[in-house]
Amino acid sequence: MDINAKKVVGEKAVEFVKDGMIVGLGTGSTVYWTILKLGELVKNGLSIRGVATSLSTEELAIKMGIPLVTLEEVDEIDLTIDGADEVNANLELIKGGGGALLREKIVSANSRKNIIIADHTKYVSVLGDFPLPIEVVPFGWKLVYKQILKLGCRPSLRMDNNLPFLTDNGNYILDCQFKKIKEPKELAIYINMIPGVVDNGLFVGMTDIVLLGFDDGGIETLLKNTLGQEK
Amino acid sequence: MDINAKKVVGEKAVEFVKDGMIVGLGTGSTVYWTILKLGELVKNGLSIRGVATSLSTEELAIKMGIPLVTLEEVDEIDLTIDGADEVNANLELIKGGGGALLREKIVSANSRKNIIIADHTKYVSVLGDFPLPIEVVPFGWKLVYKQILKLGCRPSLRMDNNLPFLTDNGNYILDCQFKKIKEPKELAIYINMIPGVVDNGLFVGMTDIVLLGFDDGGIETLLKNTLGQEK
Repeated sequence: MDINAKKVVGEKAVEFVKDGMIVGLGTGSTVYWTILKLGELVKNGLSIRGVATSLSTEELAIKMGIPLVTLEEVDEIDLTIDGADEVNANLELIKGGGGALLREKIVSANSRKNIIIADHTKYVSVLGDFPLPIEVVPFGWKLVYKQILKLGCRPSLRMDNNLPFLTDNGNYILDCQFKKIKEPKELAIYINMIPGVVDNGLFVGMTDIVLLGFDDGGIETLLKNTLGQEK
Repeated sequence: MDINAKKVVGEKAVEFVKDGMIVGLGTGSTVYWTILKLGELVKNGLSIRGVATSLSTEELAIKMGIPLVTLEEVDEIDLTIDGADEVNANLELIKGGGGALLREKIVSANSRKNIIIADHTKYVSVLGDFPLPIEVVPFGWKLVYKQILKLGCRPSLRMDNNLPFLTDNGNYILDCQFKKIKEPKELAIYINMIPGVVDNGLFVGMTDIVLLGFDDGGIETLLKNTLGQEK
């Protein structure tokens, strides 16, 4: 049932893409529809360059004829369109279920504008039901595990065929279901200051617009409240 | 001339080591003297186990007959003795000139007590003359470089035989001479929140005792001011 909601919102997002832009291309089943639509527009003459956040997005973009550049080749990205695993009313996110949180976060942090697209089921009043991914260096990861335990969740080491899942950067992922993350910014800082943590899946103050898709074809737009929120 | 000051303070530090302890063994030309002295004491019956923060320390400890355990084998370290590149009156440090800052920081964060030993030339009124090492993932490091530029220093990518120096974790090091770091804690948080940064060489709120050695054999002891400082 969510396929339709994802398609609606995924295709809507291309309206923010202008000729000449460098566009960060996220990953997942919603952005899939954005990339397909962008491919159509490129065939019809739109001139953009994409920056892929994952190998699967890279492959899809190439298949759709979207010219790509690497992150190393650009100074800044004009606009990034990506999905999320959870979104709240403050446009704060949990991302990284797919394991590419760091690459996605680097792209997002270097984008002038960030649009998040998701089906309505990703919208939550409080973040934390979705397990927060935390990327940690393999050396000493058990001690990081113990430090995170103190925060009130029981992390689970993400596995892949009976071996620890490895990120693109060669690190491990600890998935931590906090249930209720009442202060995302404070938690993100606390986690990132634990030695051995590379980054975590909380995206705070990075998103400008959220588009939520519904099964009836409707779209809800959430804008950043510029009062008391920082980029 | 500093050899003597380093030896004096390096040997003094062993007085904090008690029988049965798990001892974090730092790295460098000052801790070198601690390890030599500990080796003597072990020969005379002291029973300890060491956790090495580098390969060179591991080799030296084995040579001196100090039994070692890995970080993975211990729940907690009783006491860590390490050096520093800069120390201020608040027991805040810059470390990582040797490139092992993350391993040293993980060991320190998991130690009940941390003693820093240094010759008096490492003591400064304001941190920042020594270039702060920042460990970054190779992917997207140029964008991290640009983010750090905004903080008011011009980072330099640490090289090794015309190739980027690689840490034990396969990351790069950006060395950033800030000159005056007036708010080490705030800077450490700011840097660690930049996506792509793994950690930085500021050690804030981690040190319990600093021993400074002088060339005349004197030793100055700095203790943590428990007011307004956190572990």
